[in-house]
Amino acid sequence: MAGSILGKHFTIQTFGESHGEGIGVVVDGCPAGLSLSASDIQTYLNRRKPGQSKFATPRKEADEVEILSGVFEGKTTGTPIALLVRNTSQRSGDYSEIASYYRPGHADYTFDEKYGFRDYRGGGRSSGRETIGRVAAGAIALKLLKELGIEICAYTRSIGPVTIDYAKFDKETILSTPTSMPDADASAKAEAYLEECMKSLDSSGGVIECVAKGVPAGVGEPVFDKLDANLGKAIMSIGSVKAFEIGDGIAVATMKGSENNDSFVMKDGAVAKATNHSGGILGGMSDGEDIVLRAYIKPTPSIFKEQNTVNKDGENISVQIKGRHDPVIVPRAVVVVEAMTALTILDLMMENATAKLDNLKKIYE
Amino acid sequence: MAGSILGKHFTIQTFGESHGEGIGVVVDGCPAGLSLSASDIQTYLNRRKPGQSKFATPRKEADEVEILSGVFEGKTTGTPIALLVRNTSQRSGDYSEIASYYRPGHADYTFDEKYGFRDYRGGGRSSGRETIGRVAAGAIALKLLKELGIEICAYTRSIGPVTIDYAKFDKETILSTPTSMPDADASAKAEAYLEECMKSLDSSGGVIECVAKGVPAGVGEPVFDKLDANLGKAIMSIGSVKAFEIGDGIAVATMKGSENNDSFVMKDGAVAKATNHSGGILGGMSDGEDIVLRAYIKPTPSIFKEQNTVNKDGENISVQIKGRHDPVIVPRAVVVVEAMTALTILDLMMENATAKLDNLKKIYE
Amino acid sequence: MAGSILGKHFTIQTFGESHGEGIGVVVDGCPAGLSLSASDIQTYLNRRKPGQSKFATPRKEADEVEILSGVFEGKTTGTPIALLVRNTSQRSGDYSEIASYYRPGHADYTFDEKYGFRDYRGGGRSSGRETIGRVAAGAIALKLLKELGIEICAYTRSIGPVTIDYAKFDKETILSTPTSMPDADASAKAEAYLEECMKSLDSSGGVIECVAKGVPAGVGEPVFDKLDANLGKAIMSIGSVKAFEIGDGIAVATMKGSENNDSFVMKDGAVAKATNHSGGILGGMSDGEDIVLRAYIKPTPSIFKEQNTVNKDGENISVQIKGRHDPVIVPRAVVVVEAMTALTILDLMMENATAKLDNLKKIYE
Amino acid sequence: MAGSILGKHFTIQTFGESHGEGIGVVVDGCPAGLSLSASDIQTYLNRRKPGQSKFATPRKEADEVEILSGVFEGKTTGTPIALLVRNTSQRSGDYSEIASYYRPGHADYTFDEKYGFRDYRGGGRSSGRETIGRVAAGAIALKLLKELGIEICAYTRSIGPVTIDYAKFDKETILSTPTSMPDADASAKAEAYLEECMKSLDSSGGVIECVAKGVPAGVGEPVFDKLDANLGKAIMSIGSVKAFEIGDGIAVATMKGSENNDSFVMKDGAVAKATNHSGGILGGMSDGEDIVLRAYIKPTPSIFKEQNTVNKDGENISVQIKGRHDPVIVPRAVVVVEAMTALTILDLMMENATAKLDNLKKIYE
Repeated sequence: MAGSILGKHFTIQTFGESHGEGIGVVVDGCPAGLSLSASDIQTYLNRRKPGQSKFATPRKEADEVEILSGVFEGKTTGTPIALLVRNTSQRSGDYSEIASYYRPGHADYTFDEKYGFRDYRGGGRSSGRETIGRVAAGAIALKLLKELGIEICAYTRSIGPVTIDYAKFDKETILSTPTSMPDADASAKAEAYLEECMKSLDSSGGVIECVAKGVPAGVGEPVFDKLDANLGKAIMSIGSVKAFEIGDGIAVATMKGSENNDSFVMKDGAVAKATNHSGGILGGMSDGEDIVLRAYIKPTPSIFKEQNTVNKDGENISVQIKGRHDPVIVPRAVVVVEAMTALTILDLMMENATAKLDNLKKIYE
Repeated sequence: MAGSILGKHFTIQTFGESHGEGIGVVVDGCPAGLSLSASDIQTYLNRRKPGQSKFATPRKEADEVEILSGVFEGKTTGTPIALLVRNTSQRSGDYSEIASYYRPGHADYTFDEKYGFRDYRGGGRSSGRETIGRVAAGAIALKLLKELGIEICAYTRSIGPVTIDYAKFDKETILSTPTSMPDADASAKAEAYLEECMKSLDSSGGVIECVAKGVPAGVGEPVFDKLDANLGKAIMSIGSVKAFEIGDGIAVATMKGSENNDSFVMKDGAVAKATNHSGGILGGMSDGEDIVLRAYIKPTPSIFKEQNTVNKDGENISVQIKGRHDPVIVPRAVVVVEAMTALTILDLMMENATAKLDNLKKIYE
Repeated sequence: MAGSILGKHFTIQTFGESHGEGIGVVVDGCPAGLSLSASDIQTYLNRRKPGQSKFATPRKEADEVEILSGVFEGKTTGTPIALLVRNTSQRSGDYSEIASYYRPGHADYTFDEKYGFRDYRGGGRSSGRETIGRVAAGAIALKLLKELGIEICAYTRSIGPVTIDYAKFDKETILSTPTSMPDADASAKAEAYLEECMKSLDSSGGVIECVAKGVPAGVGEPVFDKLDANLGKAIMSIGSVKAFEIGDGIAVATMKGSENNDSFVMKDGAVAKATNHSGGILGGMSDGEDIVLRAYIKPTPSIFKEQNTVNKDGENISVQIKGRHDPVIVPRAVVVVEAMTALTILDLMMENATAKLDNLKKIYE
Repeated sequence: MAGSILGKHFTIQTFGESHGEGIGVVVDGCPAGLSLSASDIQTYLNRRKPGQSKFATPRKEADEVEILSGVFEGKTTGTPIALLVRNTSQRSGDYSEIASYYRPGHADYTFDEKYGFRDYRGGGRSSGRETIGRVAAGAIALKLLKELGIEICAYTRSIGPVTIDYAKFDKETILSTPTSMPDADASAKAEAYLEECMKSLDSSGGVIECVAKGVPAGVGEPVFDKLDANLGKAIMSIGSVKAFEIGDGIAVATMKGSENNDSFVMKDGAVAKATNHSGGILGGMSDGEDIVLRAYIKPTPSIFKEQNTVNKDGENISVQIKGRHDPVIVPRAVVVVEAMTALTILDLMMENATAKLDNLKKIYE
């Protein structure tokens, strides 16, 4: 279990490299009885597929998923669900040069230091293609959560200096803009900014926001498997994420207690909160309000500008990276954030199922 | 394993409540042969002990640690190390009132929803006292890391609007200021700010920064147990932390690739980096430079100002919380961040020990 | 997690050495709402306490348990339950000699090889006293299982050549005979045999049987966490157990399929089995019938007869072990087998709680 | 992690059903730098392939393995190794009948009880074909262990009443007899016995023995992840195994301490043992001598004789199972026992690598 397995109940294990035979994931612990077909998963994979806008690598990949196991007569059986996406557009030739040096901002050097060598083709295991497995597994988690009344939605909050206007928020727009922004005007500005970046052979960072609605109160396990802690891990494990926040996040550091505390208030006969500075999490457990998180994503490290680095012979050199790259990672990473959020919440909901003796009695009596 | 166990190799399990018999931790997987005495641990516990400044709760606790197992003739034996701190200043009487309502910003409501009821005395399991176990275990990890040439240092970066000036950074000052700031001037300003907060019956948030020096490159396990992902989880699992960042953190979202990438460069015959925007982590593995992280901490939710909330009978009420509270959590949480950082790095260094066949041969041949 | 943690849901971690401060266990994941007092646990500890018959070591230990955490107003809170038993009869002086050589049949040599040295006082961590933690945690599991309609009962099946007669089986007798046999006549014979062993400065092995009634069908997780696989691990982890079997066990190797298969048959409108060769487990899951297992236990390695061995200077020597020893481990290990069986079944029942989507809906809708 | 993941360091996750798309395994945590090709794995898969003798099902399967990831330029990279074997001889038609009733001795009933329904085609997940994943992963473990000087060899010890004669033990013979016995004469007798079983439409049980040579002393983690405990789990998790023993195993129950204890003795300047009743394990750790274990395997439950059972409508019926079945499981399970033994020993050797601070210093200094 050297790091490619996540989750305790709805456990996923991803495998595969950018230019190997394929990319995949095995889900262990999916409850039996969920309707599931390849198209349920394909819908999500299509959202991260390359070649869909001018801001995404033109690499041509169908990214077609095959269900190898765990589904019988259209339903999950409770046994491991293995999903495989074959790589079809491996152009190893493109990458022979980068075998000899360390690309700035990439994992080339750290892989060599850790393992003694690396599969340098297209970034190997550290390629963004690894997230195919996460998204495929996340699609199952999202479908299962829906059965329990939970909806999760991620979108681009900002790209470079351009941030969305919540007054213009339109959920449908997320899927239609090349930026995955829910605000068409902001998206247009961001697109212009990205074209500038491309012209200057550079790249841009950005912020993804994700909201989970309908999670019942009490999900999350004190003191280490807190909902925010596990979300933090899941989101920080996505390549290029450099910061993570819940609710008011970094802003709390300059707030006073009287500003930051959410008052409890009765609403329709139930306990609710007057505000949601906490982002739906108190003491590491869901508090019944919307769970709100944000991932801060660094600019694509692969830029066409000339850069300084060293080669494997220990010489200082200057390089210009070739190949196919996205000028911004954010739009395609939106569905990855959505997937990781779903996987984390579902895993902790399964854990929470045995928190009370009464729950066990519901199952066994 | 409902959330009170952390780590795969150097595994810690904390237990205990604010007003129960005591607080403790069991460490499983500590390598044999490390010199260890109670005073090695006490030093760190003393840094988080209450009653040491006017900004900390006046609760009187010796917080004296007892080593129950795992050490023989002054050395760790490789078997579980159990550490116990008895609670001595339980004043249950103070807390009887809060049993009846939900304190804003606290875990009272979520505990009730999860488990059906809660140990309401002093916050029970969600009390800051739980971190005694973390700090005690962290003290062992810190000592072991030192043997491997690694030094970890955390300090207060800001309180409310007051941020340290790195030009005035003095490591010794961290232990002498009541703010745990390494800059005496900033500390004085922060102290004045906190006194204002106290006068207005309010509390303040802040930021803790932590730097790890000497971690060799390659520590961290792609793709889920990345060094930054596990640090994210460890830090976010500390109560009141609402955001986490590595290196340039949230700033990367508005940076361009050419600004954010760190060039590699040869230095004294070895690969190094010209800058450290990455905060010492690339592709989820340490890159040989300083590891730099930050935790954003919310203002203490217990404030003396009147607040609105609901009681267990479902009535809207207004309350004024009594008792003993810190106007700011940050100074006492500094050593907790240091401990969690150490525990995470050591755990992943142990995992990394078997990353290469050559390493196994070093051990077994 | 170097081996002192067991279970995924109802997780136990034991700590402590024979002659250290104490022996204990932390239970993480116990569902909230179970009535629990120290006396619920003490009852079980008293069954394994030394000094209760002439066949048990005369070491005087009260083995009094203290609940340090996780229980509030008489009920489990869902947070970790830490239990501590202080050692009171450490006579380190007795053991100074054995520091210098390796006792045959003991873990002295293997501990030294693994860790470089060992806590040699009374066997240190490999002492039978470690099972105090298992029995204490098992007591909680047994109480919880009872709430779900499950009863577990272990007893001595044989000591040396003496085996019980099932026709004379009387459950009450288990607690009244010094052999923990449910057959008073067999017990008398076994007692005579043990006195012979003691006269010849020797010791005896034996067999413990355990039966679990009321476990619903479907508990156990294919393919690795099968009920029989996890029971096998739990029972084999008890010191001195050298073989484990389920149902007909070793006898199946010489049986034919037509003899070994249990026919299914309708009984009171429900599916049942005509026989129970399988010992209540099919395909790694409980099949609704009694679960029957057996543990084969080696003779106490500490005998008073002279034996050959080597010392730490690499010399062949001959030794006579002094001190306080049981001539047979079996009677006091009965409650340990019962505890480990309960812990395993409960853990897998908690895992099984989320096997079906319908179960999750029962909890969350 | 609902049961299809095994191991903490060299972690395997199997997936797939008898009549689904294929069977596979993902290995996470294999150290980087091991030479590995598909043929290294195929050699072992060929030993369990069906259709190789008259005592094995005539189902035609090439069982050809494809390496999907984790190997680059002929070496393991340290990243997950995914292995896939496509099913090619699914004859679902044969199995439609068994959907309606519960086969005695099979997991049909327990699967239905656990998950609400089952993939009934060829036993689905409970088919012996699942062991393809175990053998494929085991092949890698065996190759890696060889690099560390460890050899593991399993063979059939008995079939029905026929047991091998150790005086005639010939390792080469294991691979050439249809029984996997290392004694050609015993094999001839066992073959005759099996033909009788087949004539009477019945099946036979048997015993597999496995010996590991060269394991250094100290491998295994007290107190739960003992070497014998983890071997017990690994072996008991193989379908049809009903008993497990180490060394003298069940025989110890009737032995005296003076007979069962192995004396230590100096041999060529090193500590050794005069005998090996312990089967190479003391206190849950390897003691440097051969590790010897045995698995007792029940007769194939699928027999052609008429049997009584119930159908899904709750009626008592009598059935005759059709299809392709082995009259004995033992010969083809030999390589599975070898694989599970290797996986367990390697996993604990990796764990043991960090048992001492000195080991960490060897890696990091």
